[in-house]
Amino acid sequence: MARVVVVTPNPAVDVTYGVADQTPGESHRVTAVKRRPGGKGINVARALLALGHDPVNVLPLGGGSGDWIAAELAELGLAAIVTPVAGLTRTCVAITDPHGHPTVYNEPGPRVAPREWQALVADTARLLVDARMLVVSGSLPTGTDATLIGELVAAAKAANVPVLLDVSGASLIAAARAGADILKPNAQELLEATGESTLDAAIASVRSLGAGLVAVSRGTDGLVAVDDHGAYSAPAVTGVTGNPTGAGDATTAGLAAALLDGLPVPDALALAAALGAAAVLRPVAGEVDLDAFHRFLYR
Amino acid sequence: MARVVVVTPNPAVDVTYGVADQTPGESHRVTAVKRRPGGKGINVARALLALGHDPVNVLPLGGGSGDWIAAELAELGLAAIVTPVAGLTRTCVAITDPHGHPTVYNEPGPRVAPREWQALVADTARLLVDARMLVVSGSLPTGTDATLIGELVAAAKAANVPVLLDVSGASLIAAARAGADILKPNAQELLEATGESTLDAAIASVRSLGAGLVAVSRGTDGLVAVDDHGAYSAPAVTGVTGNPTGAGDATTAGLAAALLDGLPVPDALALAAALGAAAVLRPVAGEVDLDAFHRFLYR
Repeated sequence: MARVVVVTPNPAVDVTYGVADQTPGESHRVTAVKRRPGGKGINVARALLALGHDPVNVLPLGGGSGDWIAAELAELGLAAIVTPVAGLTRTCVAITDPHGHPTVYNEPGPRVAPREWQALVADTARLLVDARMLVVSGSLPTGTDATLIGELVAAAKAANVPVLLDVSGASLIAAARAGADILKPNAQELLEATGESTLDAAIASVRSLGAGLVAVSRGTDGLVAVDDHGAYSAPAVTGVTGNPTGAGDATTAGLAAALLDGLPVPDALALAAALGAAAVLRPVAGEVDLDAFHRFLYR
Repeated sequence: MARVVVVTPNPAVDVTYGVADQTPGESHRVTAVKRRPGGKGINVARALLALGHDPVNVLPLGGGSGDWIAAELAELGLAAIVTPVAGLTRTCVAITDPHGHPTVYNEPGPRVAPREWQALVADTARLLVDARMLVVSGSLPTGTDATLIGELVAAAKAANVPVLLDVSGASLIAAARAGADILKPNAQELLEATGESTLDAAIASVRSLGAGLVAVSRGTDGLVAVDDHGAYSAPAVTGVTGNPTGAGDATTAGLAAALLDGLPVPDALALAAALGAAAVLRPVAGEVDLDAFHRFLYR
């Protein structure tokens, strides 16, 4: 099977600290530490691998934290082409206590030099020769010009490979302008990026800029999508509770896998919703419950 | 000049995150990130180097964070003998906002295997052959038996080198029992470790266990000390405001340097107080303001 190339522009070491309580201004003993390779694209690639696809990650990594991510991806059986960067790959820290939601501190990530970005685009282009789809997911590093997203879209077009992007803000607009085949933002991201007040207007806006299929995840309201042939929707799987972090990335992976398998858009949306729900059942972002996925798909 | 061997049993990458505010349960964009090699012994070694001494660090390091500390020590011109460990060297995160004191989250650090500890003690013993003093400063890694502190004290005695320890809790008692030449806890640590209610009783307690000189830092109340010949004190330098983190470590370095130079205990306490105050003036723990140190010393 030819490969799905998954670009994570701004990967992170996701660290979770368990503490008894959180008191501003005080010192806290961390009683539990978890580290995992983070970044939306990595989660997408993990879900694609779980579905039997053969994803290859492309990501900029630097310093000891970058080396750690590379080693963990190998441990997870995930292929990766690393673009070395001078900066230190960022860390995101989530503080969890028994009382409430995690408190998250996101490092901005290193500045990636233009020369380093060009190397990442070249690495991606090289892999696309032998690929069936390009997925780009997550934020850009600090100080990066969003139009660079256009270069990744152009690389996919040059290779005649469809490109699916789950990006936000200026990157989302740049992806639409570059003629992205598939956009998969969530509703809030799409409204914010377009400045529109309704989802219909926001979808029409990015489609008029140049995007093909626009599929929008709306949490418990399910998915809606529009392409040249019509508008579609799929309900969310109901009665699922757990860890929503990474569910959007599993939804992206489900959409990519379904479209690769040649499913029509309504079926692809249903599959994406089922895989997203299957991710909610797992405590760790990036994992999916395959048994539940199959149950959700056929119920 | 023969060397001062400085053991940091539980080093850390000290990370400081600058944020606009801290709201539990929310996501925060980190606007400023600072990383520095942390651990009390490293701060002591930096201050000794600033005073013109020739410290050599001994410390267990593992993983990408351990590699990072090793590279930073080299950058700072600090010699280091690294004992490789399988675990990942810990990170301590301080969250700072414009409104209050930093909120600190301290990872416990990796479990250090008995075999790894024996390697660290052996590395220390080898260096002591050519050394004038051993300094041990800071906490032990998670799950480490405090009596291991006794092995470091025994290594110093075998090499006929005086040993100074700035340790707390069970390690402080173990150091006293092993016959430590010099203990330098702060008042709160000494009271907690001994369970005594007065400083006089606490000092008498660790001296009766086997400690020689016991010098206790009391913040703005200055230093007190007791040895076989009497009791001594030195006032704190007044009117100094700034960053107290690392000031205790500079005090330890000042005491070590003064005793190495053959100063009598009262003068050594005065020098230690001056160097501690000189550290408060620097925004980064581990640094000392040498001009201020000289002013404080002779005023």
